[in-house]
Amino acid sequence: MVNAIDPQLTCSDSPNPGTGSTACGSVGVVKTQYFEFDEPLRLSSGQVLERYTLAVHTYGTLNPDKSNAVLICHALNASHHVAGISADDPNEIGWWDNMVGPGKPVDTDKFFVIGVNNIGSCFGSTGPASIRSETGKPWGAAFPVVTVEDWVMAQARLADRLGIERFAAVMGGSLGGMQALSWSITCPERVANCVVIASTPRLSAQNIGFNEVARRAIITDPEFHGGDYYAHGVVPKRGLSVARMIGHITYLSDDDMAEKFGRAQRAPAEDGAWRYGFDVEFEVESYLRYQGEKFSKYFDANTYLLITRALDYFDPARSSGGDLTKALAPTEASFLLVSFATDWRFPPARSREIVKALLNNATPVTYAEIDAPHGHDAFLLDDARYHAVVREYFKRIAKEVSHD
Amino acid sequence: MVNAIDPQLTCSDSPNPGTGSTACGSVGVVKTQYFEFDEPLRLSSGQVLERYTLAVHTYGTLNPDKSNAVLICHALNASHHVAGISADDPNEIGWWDNMVGPGKPVDTDKFFVIGVNNIGSCFGSTGPASIRSETGKPWGAAFPVVTVEDWVMAQARLADRLGIERFAAVMGGSLGGMQALSWSITCPERVANCVVIASTPRLSAQNIGFNEVARRAIITDPEFHGGDYYAHGVVPKRGLSVARMIGHITYLSDDDMAEKFGRAQRAPAEDGAWRYGFDVEFEVESYLRYQGEKFSKYFDANTYLLITRALDYFDPARSSGGDLTKALAPTEASFLLVSFATDWRFPPARSREIVKALLNNATPVTYAEIDAPHGHDAFLLDDARYHAVVREYFKRIAKEVSHD
Repeated sequence: MVNAIDPQLTCSDSPNPGTGSTACGSVGVVKTQYFEFDEPLRLSSGQVLERYTLAVHTYGTLNPDKSNAVLICHALNASHHVAGISADDPNEIGWWDNMVGPGKPVDTDKFFVIGVNNIGSCFGSTGPASIRSETGKPWGAAFPVVTVEDWVMAQARLADRLGIERFAAVMGGSLGGMQALSWSITCPERVANCVVIASTPRLSAQNIGFNEVARRAIITDPEFHGGDYYAHGVVPKRGLSVARMIGHITYLSDDDMAEKFGRAQRAPAEDGAWRYGFDVEFEVESYLRYQGEKFSKYFDANTYLLITRALDYFDPARSSGGDLTKALAPTEASFLLVSFATDWRFPPARSREIVKALLNNATPVTYAEIDAPHGHDAFLLDDARYHAVVREYFKRIAKEVSHD
Repeated sequence: MVNAIDPQLTCSDSPNPGTGSTACGSVGVVKTQYFEFDEPLRLSSGQVLERYTLAVHTYGTLNPDKSNAVLICHALNASHHVAGISADDPNEIGWWDNMVGPGKPVDTDKFFVIGVNNIGSCFGSTGPASIRSETGKPWGAAFPVVTVEDWVMAQARLADRLGIERFAAVMGGSLGGMQALSWSITCPERVANCVVIASTPRLSAQNIGFNEVARRAIITDPEFHGGDYYAHGVVPKRGLSVARMIGHITYLSDDDMAEKFGRAQRAPAEDGAWRYGFDVEFEVESYLRYQGEKFSKYFDANTYLLITRALDYFDPARSSGGDLTKALAPTEASFLLVSFATDWRFPPARSREIVKALLNNATPVTYAEIDAPHGHDAFLLDDARYHAVVREYFKRIAKEVSHD
């Protein structure tokens, strides 16, 4: 166990530290699979999605009794492309490639890992930018509002299709953690382990506030056209860019930004003089503008609205009058929760609320609070202590499902 | 001293607590005075402002030797209207009316208090919306970028005009505190006391990041027209509204927002069901939208850009290689610094940097860290402990300047 948290061993499963052997690698080139669902999906809103497609990646091999499946749920701007290199673009690496792969904490030599793009998103699953068969045009503003619970229902149908009755683990960070949590409540018999990282049982007023500002930036962009910008051949790039810039600030810690950018001047004159204008003066401005612009070129604005709204609505304790213990009572899973000290978006205190509710129910739970400097983004980064915790947890799961 | 921090005595100067006597009141109806300056003002940028007007309020009476003057510097969206009721609008109360007035912490029975609107602002002093005499049109984008140091120079000329050689105190909160700090460095012989509340010696990368997002929202609003929207008869309301919403979130603490709004639903249906859309669902959304819209109707967008930029540039230690101790060495003032525990915009740690630098120089400094729940906004609110600290500090100053 001590070896497992040795920072030198981030990518090694070797029982003999010091040998230098590492077993980790990439899942390689992966191709998106598309699953079509024709059975109507009744959504939380009461609206019905008549049919939908899910874009899916799988890594590793499903064992004969289908007990080694791990579902990875994505956060706001990610997709089913969890690990490996996209078959469509050799420059696209999965968003959790440091976590999922052969010899990695979620070891694809042992687990059959599924990444699924959620409905409402814009990476292959049915969403606002998809062509609606009834009209032959993009859904646009007509796409129904979806919730975390809706995503879980759609993912459950995918599990059915794959013949997976029970997941060895359902796992996610941030909004992905909410989906894992929701799975454990709504389909308790189907989740053996629930891994919730850098998440929260519900958004705070401040969280909702930031989401709302981002949405206002998008919706009030004249090129939004009430959500039907596709028909106008434009994209509300300005609004989407501002939304992303706001998001980025909330993903990083104050200290991390200070460390990364500080007050560093961007391309200063020889005498270090300011330009005295509103063009980029500071590195942090350049970074945020770049992130905003890049994002606005590939992400769908309606998806941004939908996913931030799903975040706002998520509140599994709402139906039990705010009693999270009661809300989590149905779960049959064991839990791993991880939070990060400098995450001010979903701080450790929010994870502790979940841990406390689980303990109240005498549900088995492992909790790690990692003193990482990278704010909310830490859940995506390769921190040795964090990965060691996940690795050890999945080693235990592997023992449970293994038939060797 | 104990009585002074009794929460029951927020507005009393009575030495006999329990008598129920309070001496505090309002400065009453106040009229703006306009001071014209024809001597060119050379700005930090090297640009020259040929002439300018300052909008000014004064409260109380200047004593014969002009030793009881207190200059109050304003923050981002405030003005010279510090206290009392505006002669132009009986609904307009000064932004620091709880702090300044007869019997209040800054007692106008003892002090001659000056509020001055800064150049670049939009409340009567020369700014981007002012008519430029050379062209007969609003300045717009041609208005030069101004800095905290430029404001101090403009304010110093006002002091000259009023015959005030030395202020009993220069005081401000947030950006106003930066001006007070700058006064103590650039005009050390003219500041007897420097009162710096909820401020910082320089913005962090995160602070600059939020400013930059706000500016991008404004500048990319198609109705901004490169800053010359006046000529188009429009205002970049959407961008300005988003900018203000972002600002508002940073002024409040997470806990304060949780307390004020939590996840409360706005006008819920009888069964409490969500509407499942992007209209207002949560009270916090309603609040932020309202604040944004209100602001966009009265505040000038170019002023927002200028003032956020002045915030970004402020860094008195820059010319001494980041050494704040060295930067503050010239000061001859005594200092009062106050910070607020839940202020995450300019947290206590930032005030402590200033305190430490002052102590390094053996400069007299009083520092109070107030455990108020209201975030950055606390500096504007009527917290008994906070006001007691300021009251006691100004009592001491009053003794120094009094000739009774």
